[in-house]
Amino acid sequence: MSKVHRFVGLGDAWDWENTPDLTYMADSKGVTGKMLVGAADGAPNFRIRYFRIEAGGYSSRHSHNFDHGVYIVHGQARVKLGQEEVEVGPRDVVYISANEEHQLRAVGNEPLGFLCVIPAID
Amino acid sequence: MSKVHRFVGLGDAWDWENTPDLTYMADSKGVTGKMLVGAADGAPNFRIRYFRIEAGGYSSRHSHNFDHGVYIVHGQARVKLGQEEVEVGPRDVVYISANEEHQLRAVGNEPLGFLCVIPAID
Repeated sequence: MSKVHRFVGLGDAWDWENTPDLTYMADSKGVTGKMLVGAADGAPNFRIRYFRIEAGGYSSRHSHNFDHGVYIVHGQARVKLGQEEVEVGPRDVVYISANEEHQLRAVGNEPLGFLCVIPAID
Repeated sequence: MSKVHRFVGLGDAWDWENTPDLTYMADSKGVTGKMLVGAADGAPNFRIRYFRIEAGGYSSRHSHNFDHGVYIVHGQARVKLGQEEVEVGPRDVVYISANEEHQLRAVGNEPLGFLCVIPAID
């Protein structure tokens, strides 16, 4: 069945109706998230997650056997991709292939927000 | 290999580096698109597309055996979902399940822009 998750954020606190909170892993700082399209929607193929990283925070530096499609929605990110580092901002897209070590860091004074698409592995 | 597609749009003409144009199907009006994450990135699991529908335009009314994850980035949409119709705007999320008849229409005076995630079927 199709579903609508309306944006219900206030100010820089982005939120959507009927979207489960995500628990982000250890070895990170200031990361929270919402599952925008997931198992609760009956979605069999992919997941769309929203992550927020507070200014100065960072995601875990890790790699895994599935890929990420990242679309920045607010703030600035420094992204480690293997041995490289890139800086990206709103509307930029980063494709992180499987098994590539990666980490996102919120740089500047604003929280970083991004969409992160993954295959359905849960 | 990981890749960055930087946003290079000007004004309301959104565009990204190194992203193929999409050819949208007939039975529609004013629809153009870009593949933000696709086969050219070596992505095996999912696709992230950006579609723009000019004011007054609409996508094909159809159904198919795969699902869509839609995230509105600009403008206003009237979305047909089976027998229902909903109106959504920026940051709203619509999950369209497989085999659900659907159509997006750009309402208001601005072009509609949205991200549309699908499984890798190409």
